[in-house]
Amino acid sequence: MTYCVGLFLDEGLVLLSDTRTNAGVDHISTFSKMHVEEVPGERMLAMLSSGNLAISQAVWNRLQEGVWLDSERHTLRDVPTMFRAAQLVGAAVRAVFDADGPSLRAQGIGFDVALLLGGQIAGQPHRLYMVYAAGNFVEATADTSFLQIGEHKYGKPILDRAVTPGISLADGVKLALISMDGTLRSNLTVGMPLDLLVVRAGTQRVALRKRITEDEPYFRLVREGWERALRDAYAAMSVPDWV
Amino acid sequence: MTYCVGLFLDEGLVLLSDTRTNAGVDHISTFSKMHVEEVPGERMLAMLSSGNLAISQAVWNRLQEGVWLDSERHTLRDVPTMFRAAQLVGAAVRAVFDADGPSLRAQGIGFDVALLLGGQIAGQPHRLYMVYAAGNFVEATADTSFLQIGEHKYGKPILDRAVTPGISLADGVKLALISMDGTLRSNLTVGMPLDLLVVRAGTQRVALRKRITEDEPYFRLVREGWERALRDAYAAMSVPDWV
Repeated sequence: MTYCVGLFLDEGLVLLSDTRTNAGVDHISTFSKMHVEEVPGERMLAMLSSGNLAISQAVWNRLQEGVWLDSERHTLRDVPTMFRAAQLVGAAVRAVFDADGPSLRAQGIGFDVALLLGGQIAGQPHRLYMVYAAGNFVEATADTSFLQIGEHKYGKPILDRAVTPGISLADGVKLALISMDGTLRSNLTVGMPLDLLVVRAGTQRVALRKRITEDEPYFRLVREGWERALRDAYAAMSVPDWV
Repeated sequence: MTYCVGLFLDEGLVLLSDTRTNAGVDHISTFSKMHVEEVPGERMLAMLSSGNLAISQAVWNRLQEGVWLDSERHTLRDVPTMFRAAQLVGAAVRAVFDADGPSLRAQGIGFDVALLLGGQIAGQPHRLYMVYAAGNFVEATADTSFLQIGEHKYGKPILDRAVTPGISLADGVKLALISMDGTLRSNLTVGMPLDLLVVRAGTQRVALRKRITEDEPYFRLVREGWERALRDAYAAMSVPDWV
């Protein structure tokens, strides 16, 4: 499984993914699930993936080679808008489904893939999409300013409580790491290291791309600090007088 | 869906369930998922259920009327041990499967049920089991002193971090409510009110059984206090110097 989260903030985007893949519990591997397409200053797009690794890798490779959309072949480097970029990713998913779906079905394997696509093209707002296995997609808005794919449940309560469009990118990184930490603890199919990407609105370039390992001091601070904070908060809360 | 959690503590058991059932998002109802069998001082058993309501109600009704186990008809009031009680619940699940499974399958409906069974019989230790749809079961131990059924993921991280066998029953109630609150916020198919049951080890009787509504002062304290504590903890944590 996988956990990827994207925060759609006024200041820009925070994207975080784990790197564990597994085909059964005795076959786990490390693969980056974050792919970036950048023309610094002009456009910056990133795709995060969950689900079947063969499917998501095929989607990204097709996007590199060009995918047909409305009778023209495009890549993420030449689509004119983020909406068109999301359509192109959807078209790539559908192309993989057309190519591999029947054989997967013959083996009893579902067509399992979900993608986050975030980025910005110069002169347009930054946007964040979640693309489904059917190739259609939804977009994050100010009402719900985060999107998750994969093992999303463990890390959702803290995001539900704390993410608003107005928080800073630094706070967004902090919250994404807290959300990921809870998931890592509770689900073995989500694993270190992590890939973090920060995009500042209006720059169309990677502000920060970082591979976060177990040894990363800030991640350890989040992990240990959050654990301690939860324990302290729980200890400080009064107990019911009716027990 | 449902969320039920059981804590297996040195001091006794804490059992908490929500009351929402749903057949589609436009058909939600309130049903207690907690059933109790008590002979005060001699035995006290409680069953919490998740999954298909018709199945779990059928299981409980069969347990009232008597279920065949090793060529004898038993109820939870006459089984000699908690292990036999768990076997009896499993036998009831299998009896419902035998009776209703084929018709459910014909309608394309899975046999979806999971149960928690906790309690104590005089002269024996208190025990907590999770019974599966196949009628087999696992038991909580000191290594993992809580069991969950239904929508368990949202509320698991706090339990993973804080539940140990040595915490008090009052702290167990607090943690179960915190775990439930996170689930309630993030999943619409889990809903108020809640049913809480506390059993003190060695007493074989209900120490506390309480229907917790939105207006219950302690639940509001947990809900608001935990929200504030999380926000404070997140605000107090430093941000990475590399963003």
